[in-house]
Amino acid sequence: MHNELRSVSIVGIGQIPVLKENPKSLREMGAEVLHLAMEDAGIDQIDGLFVGNMLADELQGQKHVATLIASAAGMRGIEALHVRAATATGAAALRMAYFAVASGEARLAVALGVEKMSGGNSTAALAKALDAETETSAGATLLSQNAKLMQQYMDTYGVTVDAFNNFSLTAHQNARTNPNALFKDKNVTTEMIRNSRVIVPPLRLFDASPLCDGAAAVVLTRSEEARAYTHQPVKILSSSVATDWLRIADRSNPLRLFAAEKSSREAFRKANVHRTDLDVVEVHDAFSIMSCMALEALGFAKPGEGWRLAAENQIGLNGSVPISTFGGLKARGHPIGATALYQTCEIVQQLMGKAGANQVKNAELAMLLSIGGAGSTALTHIFGM
Amino acid sequence: MHNELRSVSIVGIGQIPVLKENPKSLREMGAEVLHLAMEDAGIDQIDGLFVGNMLADELQGQKHVATLIASAAGMRGIEALHVRAATATGAAALRMAYFAVASGEARLAVALGVEKMSGGNSTAALAKALDAETETSAGATLLSQNAKLMQQYMDTYGVTVDAFNNFSLTAHQNARTNPNALFKDKNVTTEMIRNSRVIVPPLRLFDASPLCDGAAAVVLTRSEEARAYTHQPVKILSSSVATDWLRIADRSNPLRLFAAEKSSREAFRKANVHRTDLDVVEVHDAFSIMSCMALEALGFAKPGEGWRLAAENQIGLNGSVPISTFGGLKARGHPIGATALYQTCEIVQQLMGKAGANQVKNAELAMLLSIGGAGSTALTHIFGM
Repeated sequence: MHNELRSVSIVGIGQIPVLKENPKSLREMGAEVLHLAMEDAGIDQIDGLFVGNMLADELQGQKHVATLIASAAGMRGIEALHVRAATATGAAALRMAYFAVASGEARLAVALGVEKMSGGNSTAALAKALDAETETSAGATLLSQNAKLMQQYMDTYGVTVDAFNNFSLTAHQNARTNPNALFKDKNVTTEMIRNSRVIVPPLRLFDASPLCDGAAAVVLTRSEEARAYTHQPVKILSSSVATDWLRIADRSNPLRLFAAEKSSREAFRKANVHRTDLDVVEVHDAFSIMSCMALEALGFAKPGEGWRLAAENQIGLNGSVPISTFGGLKARGHPIGATALYQTCEIVQQLMGKAGANQVKNAELAMLLSIGGAGSTALTHIFGM
Repeated sequence: MHNELRSVSIVGIGQIPVLKENPKSLREMGAEVLHLAMEDAGIDQIDGLFVGNMLADELQGQKHVATLIASAAGMRGIEALHVRAATATGAAALRMAYFAVASGEARLAVALGVEKMSGGNSTAALAKALDAETETSAGATLLSQNAKLMQQYMDTYGVTVDAFNNFSLTAHQNARTNPNALFKDKNVTTEMIRNSRVIVPPLRLFDASPLCDGAAAVVLTRSEEARAYTHQPVKILSSSVATDWLRIADRSNPLRLFAAEKSSREAFRKANVHRTDLDVVEVHDAFSIMSCMALEALGFAKPGEGWRLAAENQIGLNGSVPISTFGGLKARGHPIGATALYQTCEIVQQLMGKAGANQVKNAELAMLLSIGGAGSTALTHIFGM
């Protein structure tokens, strides 16, 4: 029997601008990026559609979203399944499409993410990523949990809230040249970040990603057939998932993102890549504190020093660890189920050398780290040419 | 590169009795069957956990259920993802675990389904399997849609509601010797079925499956390593998914289950098996009309004649097409996300010759057909020794 994996490549991408409120419906947004990605790959049929969506149950009163989108796109008959991992849901869809091609079950599979957060109580629905019995029931939300982690981090390592400013600043700077970014027209300064409204102390408006609508998709196929669709296929060098205790109180050190450490370690091993080889590192910057802890989990900084990479401008396009290169969750936007697919599209643009003003020079290797909940699920994908 | 699939086998099963209301929580039920399945396989660790659950968002206020269950089972670190396909959700979890092993990403993966329908408005949450914009918004539920299909079937083919009696009767008879069946203590007669309350005309109480709590799981590994765990591994010979238009009104002939036809045709082809080779055929008997249309979609009966297989007692344990062999969705129970995993456990018992009073003689080949919504998603799995 085979012990090696079948190699999988991305041969098409599709994304639409992230908006505060997209006039299109969930299904229309999904069908639109499905068609865009297929058009980009030059194909008119696929075998499987794997959809990431976290909130349609509550916000659109709709389950069965994968079949819904296949149907809305006029693609009767194809395989369509829905996959989730809370706020890392988009990455779960990517992994499932990767499974489908790597297993030989599909030759052409699409990973698609779509989320329509406008017009409903997104905050309450998002909080269901936490433990309903002990966290949500006590009033916890993703905002309050991240504020707590931020406070604990500041207390433990003796840093002030200003240590985090550059995470937001860098994201907003990079968003200005991304036509798909929610905040592309917003000229954010350090002063604005310092003076921004405190939502849950010490977490400020600029430390959190916005509620928004968005959709993105990528087409996957077997690497040996990829050049039939594009001159520049992007390989998925590895895909890995790990979990931590769901409840933060169960973790001996909540400032350590164990799931991110474990899944990235496995992803590095499978891809036979060292972190210093990476040119682009898209982390889950839903909150400044998450970017900071993620950089530590990945080994780019010691515990308590992740913020220095931001403070010392190492996270910019020309820095040693470029993150949020198209604006990140903070400034491109974080339409939950779609987020990791936007990031995948952006990584493809980077590796193809088609990132325009957002280009990281000579980008050859990139990582995507996605976080579900307050650190309890982590998915890592590594990409190369 | 490889063109064949890596072969995947089941080496452990775990199920708990289906109850009207299980005093345990969702996470406890999930952790329990995870441990039971692992114990059955003689293992104390796994690589990946793929969880099927449809209703926890609404009924338990809980998303992130795969990580929740990994956490509740004390299995920090493992991969855990949540997969869905409306009422076929359990089969989607099976397919994803199959993907994980077939792709080489996992050596030991568990497909687990869990649903706790007690103590909430299950009917409203279930209706989200339909099109929210045009069906649910007009008051449609799974019950009303199936009643409509039943009426259309009766009108089109000129049969009365009594044509369906034996689907329910056979299920209830088989449930009596299944210790995990919800209705194991209920002695149902044709008279009871004929006289049962009409819920939505012409659909009677005995034409519908019950709301209930349940959980079940299976352990998957590579076939070439399967004998390290059990003397009687059961092979997954094929796995296939297809969709139809989500909205019934879009289908030219709603009495034809196109998705079931397509996914089963592909499953037969991949497994190189003919329907007449099958010894056990577990269909999605959530409603009598679904069993009837499924048998037609699979080719066991012509359109309009599926009911004859029931009326002529061909669906019993000694018939030509044994279905619902442990009580089916109707009488074992239909705890949505868990259902296809219960069916998989039962098929494993049949193929191992360990089905006791429910044994189909010389069972060597079995099929599982799972339906999402009112026929819009279908998953087919074929199993053999």
